Amino acid sequence: MTVDLETLKKQMADHIHALQDEICGALERLDGKARFREDHWTRPGGGGGRSRVLEDGEFLEKGGVSTSVVFGELEEAFAGKLQGEGRTFWAGGLSLVLHPRNPHVPTVHANYRFIHQGSKAWFGGGADLTPYYLQEEDAVHFHRVHKEACDRHDPSYYPRYKKACDQYFYLRHREEARGVGGIFFENTGEELEREFAFVKDVSRAFLPAYLPIAERRKDTPYTEEQRAWQEVRRGRYVEFNLVWDRGTIFGLETKGRTESILMSLPPRVRWRYDYHPEPGTEEARLVEVLRRPRDWVGA
Amino acid sequence: MTVDLETLKKQMADHIHALQDEICGALERLDGKARFREDHWTRPGGGGGRSRVLEDGEFLEKGGVSTSVVFGELEEAFAGKLQGEGRTFWAGGLSLVLHPRNPHVPTVHANYRFIHQGSKAWFGGGADLTPYYLQEEDAVHFHRVHKEACDRHDPSYYPRYKKACDQYFYLRHREEARGVGGIFFENTGEELEREFAFVKDVSRAFLPAYLPIAERRKDTPYTEEQRAWQEVRRGRYVEFNLVWDRGTIFGLETKGRTESILMSLPPRVRWRYDYHPEPGTEEARLVEVLRRPRDWVGA
Repeated sequence: MTVDLETLKKQMADHIHALQDEICGALERLDGKARFREDHWTRPGGGGGRSRVLEDGEFLEKGGVSTSVVFGELEEAFAGKLQGEGRTFWAGGLSLVLHPRNPHVPTVHANYRFIHQGSKAWFGGGADLTPYYLQEEDAVHFHRVHKEACDRHDPSYYPRYKKACDQYFYLRHREEARGVGGIFFENTGEELEREFAFVKDVSRAFLPAYLPIAERRKDTPYTEEQRAWQEVRRGRYVEFNLVWDRGTIFGLETKGRTESILMSLPPRVRWRYDYHPEPGTEEARLVEVLRRPRDWVGA
Repeated sequence: MTVDLETLKKQMADHIHALQDEICGALERLDGKARFREDHWTRPGGGGGRSRVLEDGEFLEKGGVSTSVVFGELEEAFAGKLQGEGRTFWAGGLSLVLHPRNPHVPTVHANYRFIHQGSKAWFGGGADLTPYYLQEEDAVHFHRVHKEACDRHDPSYYPRYKKACDQYFYLRHREEARGVGGIFFENTGEELEREFAFVKDVSRAFLPAYLPIAERRKDTPYTEEQRAWQEVRRGRYVEFNLVWDRGTIFGLETKGRTESILMSLPPRVRWRYDYHPEPGTEEARLVEVLRRPRDWVGA
């Protein structure tokens, strides 16, 4: 059966724009105070995006939920690093990072994309959770919702994509995971319509995976010390994004829109020299878990 | 004439250790409150270092002045990126980054090193200034002191090394310089004793280049807004060090001591989405200058 790529591209573009509206709406309702601002930008070679960023909210200290649909010619150096061949490409995706103010609410990241290059076209993406204080039930919930979405398509998906997530979001220079993981997938090997059906399903699982955690924790009282710990841990987030994240590095090297690429960076961050939490504290317990990725729901 | 490399290594090690003491002493006197803590570390393959870090001082919010003398075998991938050949190496150097609390005092970085790999041995280093508010007389002073030290050795040095500094400390993704520059040199082409004499001279110029600026500005009153601007600009410092700085990337990729490599990161940092200062302000004037590197003392 011949896949109609142009139809799929249109459907993916429609899907990410609808999802962007849905997620931003839910976050504004949760926040109750701040609104997303939207910037439209165009790519000189073709296409563009709509970046939506919210800052200084009641719940969200900073968050970005952005879509882009870009196409045309890739730079030579970049083209060779993708799965397809040739320089002609189309890429549509949604990317989000949320940095809540309350250190008891985890930071979360998600990304869903469809890329066409030469004779190849594939979907990819995932979602992962980065808590500052570990609540096991939150990690279990986040993984369970994603597992259920995966299982509806193929029971082999969740164990594979959970592992891929742990491997990708790993800070080698710290020998620790960025957070408690989630799923990360690229090119499932299914035919494209089935792959798209899977991407629609897991991307729609984002809100049910994250919102209940945010609602449960957003009013938990916190101290200045807990806030400082959150800022120290956000430093690790910056280190991951700027040193190891392929998307960020490629984006900056190929001269993407810098503000859209770096909207993922946290609003306030600290670096302390050689800082380690006291053994036995909640802070130390988090670090222990990040050193040894867990199987949260039976992968 | 045969250069006695072993003698030079010993002399360089003695020089950087004496300089570390001298700089730390001067900074503690300037700070008046905090003291450097010292960590000794050893490299499994040979050698080690002494990292000195001061945090939460009156003048210095965070600063590191560290030395290391390491030797043995380089990792294959890393060895190929240096100037010499083979994997056997010796490297001794001093590296410092100072993040003052007061936004009217510039951040400063300096590095002086001697490397021996295979049949090659060379010196390198430099110093550069990163103000948050531009005081032209400070930039002129910093450059003039370095130019005088350069001119005592070769009048062609300063213009070349000033330009190399502007080229190296450049954030491509922001299209701006990290600061107002200074000098950056590697392998002057002179015979090694002469190169060492130059390195001793420029490294001893660091205190006279920076201290008068720090003394002049450290008691200037500042507002919360100026402090916020400093934290935003420190974000650019992080972006440079983690995305573009070869030393940092190599250090992290070759599994150096992470805390020593990242001691350069600022204590408190902010990222705001698409933030630009109002035209006509002091903040906007700084950015203008960073977009077009200046000739401060007639290069």
